[in-house]
Amino acid sequence: MPKTSKRVNKTPASPIRKLVPYAEAAKKRGIKVFHLNIGQPDIETPKTGVKALQEADLGVIAYSHSAGMISYREKLTEFYKRYDVDISTEEMIVANGGSEALLFAILSCADAGDEIIVPEPFYANYNGFARSLDIDIVPITAKIENGFALPPIEAFEEKITNKTKAILICNPSNPTGYMYSVEELKKLKEIVQKHDLFLIADEVYRDFCYEGEQHTSVLAIDGMEEYAVMVDSISKRYSACGARMGVVVSRNKNLISEAMKLAQARLSPSTLAQILGEALIETPQSYFTEVTKEYDNRRKTVINRLQNMEGVICPNPKGAFYTFVKFPIDNSDKFCQWLLEKFSYKGSTVMMAPGTGFYDTEGLGKQEARIAYVLNTNDLNNAMDCLEEALKVYPGRSTSKNLEFNTI
Amino acid sequence: MPKTSKRVNKTPASPIRKLVPYAEAAKKRGIKVFHLNIGQPDIETPKTGVKALQEADLGVIAYSHSAGMISYREKLTEFYKRYDVDISTEEMIVANGGSEALLFAILSCADAGDEIIVPEPFYANYNGFARSLDIDIVPITAKIENGFALPPIEAFEEKITNKTKAILICNPSNPTGYMYSVEELKKLKEIVQKHDLFLIADEVYRDFCYEGEQHTSVLAIDGMEEYAVMVDSISKRYSACGARMGVVVSRNKNLISEAMKLAQARLSPSTLAQILGEALIETPQSYFTEVTKEYDNRRKTVINRLQNMEGVICPNPKGAFYTFVKFPIDNSDKFCQWLLEKFSYKGSTVMMAPGTGFYDTEGLGKQEARIAYVLNTNDLNNAMDCLEEALKVYPGRSTSKNLEFNTI
Repeated sequence: MPKTSKRVNKTPASPIRKLVPYAEAAKKRGIKVFHLNIGQPDIETPKTGVKALQEADLGVIAYSHSAGMISYREKLTEFYKRYDVDISTEEMIVANGGSEALLFAILSCADAGDEIIVPEPFYANYNGFARSLDIDIVPITAKIENGFALPPIEAFEEKITNKTKAILICNPSNPTGYMYSVEELKKLKEIVQKHDLFLIADEVYRDFCYEGEQHTSVLAIDGMEEYAVMVDSISKRYSACGARMGVVVSRNKNLISEAMKLAQARLSPSTLAQILGEALIETPQSYFTEVTKEYDNRRKTVINRLQNMEGVICPNPKGAFYTFVKFPIDNSDKFCQWLLEKFSYKGSTVMMAPGTGFYDTEGLGKQEARIAYVLNTNDLNNAMDCLEEALKVYPGRSTSKNLEFNTI
Repeated sequence: MPKTSKRVNKTPASPIRKLVPYAEAAKKRGIKVFHLNIGQPDIETPKTGVKALQEADLGVIAYSHSAGMISYREKLTEFYKRYDVDISTEEMIVANGGSEALLFAILSCADAGDEIIVPEPFYANYNGFARSLDIDIVPITAKIENGFALPPIEAFEEKITNKTKAILICNPSNPTGYMYSVEELKKLKEIVQKHDLFLIADEVYRDFCYEGEQHTSVLAIDGMEEYAVMVDSISKRYSACGARMGVVVSRNKNLISEAMKLAQARLSPSTLAQILGEALIETPQSYFTEVTKEYDNRRKTVINRLQNMEGVICPNPKGAFYTFVKFPIDNSDKFCQWLLEKFSYKGSTVMMAPGTGFYDTEGLGKQEARIAYVLNTNDLNNAMDCLEEALKVYPGRSTSKNLEFNTI
């Protein structure tokens, strides 16, 4: 039998997927599972976009330009001005999802054997992409005790080698909800300028900011022109995850012209999703105000409940719709499985994403889990009731003594 | 300034794209350009599919399963039975276009430095994908004199090394229109069995067969179970190129389970395109009968005209909607550019894809070009008038003597 490639063999499976059979079994036993494990919002996609797609003249669903329809790219240049980002239609490639945008970015920056530095915990799929392309992710650990702030500049400098080609950040962060400050972005600028690296910023959660915080794009930082590569998507902004519509943007002309060869090889982004995306740009501000208010309520609900559970450490995330939490437990993979396999409270249980899948450093994240607050506040409260009860009865609950043991 | 990766640097730009500025300039001068250069059909996408999409309840456009919606995969298993292909929903991954399906296939088969053997001339984007992934395409030349039939088995065996991981064919072929016979597929089976290779078959043109020929899928060949990987797409079948909906199918369970890691990393195929694709499966047979008849008329028109031009060699393609033609000229890149830059006949000219872009072997294809017969017969006749006139006046026209010189 022919053998599959080593690179796909070493590509990690989705850390969340292995729990799916347990969730399915729980549901078969009649248990309601609160899905806090994935970033699939329950918010409606704005009608403006859906209507445009439904009314479009789809006589021949033809290829678009490999970089995206010019009408959509023109609208995007207007759109990004709202975020102090001034770019032209030639400085972007419309992609089949933020995922493809990220693929184009990292393939254009790094060869097989090259390294990309990423603050951990990070979005697990970065590792999926990187490993399958023989790129090494070099993690720099952000600490829960610091609310997952950017590690100090020295930590980056220690990790930079002649194989380092880029730093990759997610801002606001999936999975921690952390929002980088302008000062932190300027520190990153110094590093990439000094060492001639690309700074790839995944900004798909830019619209979800709380407590009056303002998101700053890497493209809005002076002096970043040749270094910054921004990855964006309509998935979260408009709750249109299934449309698969993203974009990669850079003022580095060489990067865009090289990435265009990849875009041409796959011919075209989705014409359907572009029609949707173009119309969605007209979404009124009131939609975002309402959606952000709703998420903020959810955030407060979850954070408040978690911070009041004994032994739980939950930072105060200012962006995205995740929080990364430390539990007084032996092992979050076991705990998350146990929640689905052995536990229920009032006929319900909770599915979370175990923390280990978000760290590249072996052994980290064993007491942590990511919670996506993508359900309504009533469901979230019920989910938190489950979690609170579960922590009381979970056999692997740590006392302060065995907690210490577990961290050896 | 940070440097882009070597692998993207060596990725070839689309061989067709470099002519685009000349076509645009010609149009600005008021010249009508007959586009025979790309496989974008003018046929309408069946209304059944478009209606289903436009009437779908798109409340939340959510992620689907990473392998595709189960309802769509179930329909696909039924669909492929029409082609004597018996597969389960677990043996396929729905992808964002045939392009992504191909990406999953080759990443799962070949590591950096590995080789994939491809009969040339071949679809130029195979090289785009392969080079960006550090996979070497090893060409085996099919000859225009043989109508681009499969090269002899010995030619394959000569090229196989310990780095060879797969053979990749396109059947029916883009760019030649050649259809592999069952005997040829069985020969390929012998080779892949003997040398433990994957056989990747791009079958996106399966529905376009002429002169009573029947297409045979690699998945319909007994004994191919562990070896065959089929790549398919709705783009050409239903003239829905812009939907970006494809599928990778294999009975090799390991290959599919490894490729699933790539599918999970990019989360989901397009939900919109899946709704379209699922409904399109109900397209009545009469649609295909009509469309094939239309293409057959176009094919006959083009072939007949070309075969009657002095010095032109045009095989008789039995599938897809391309023909690969040899002209009595010095250099097809120059000729194709000259057609756009210097020539017009009755206010019109022709855009073709130069042959060199479809060969990996340096120096081949210099007198050849690909013609996509995707226009109506009237336009095609006018385009052939242009071409016939052009060949009379083109300064690089070869006499039999300098023809010989040009092939040295």
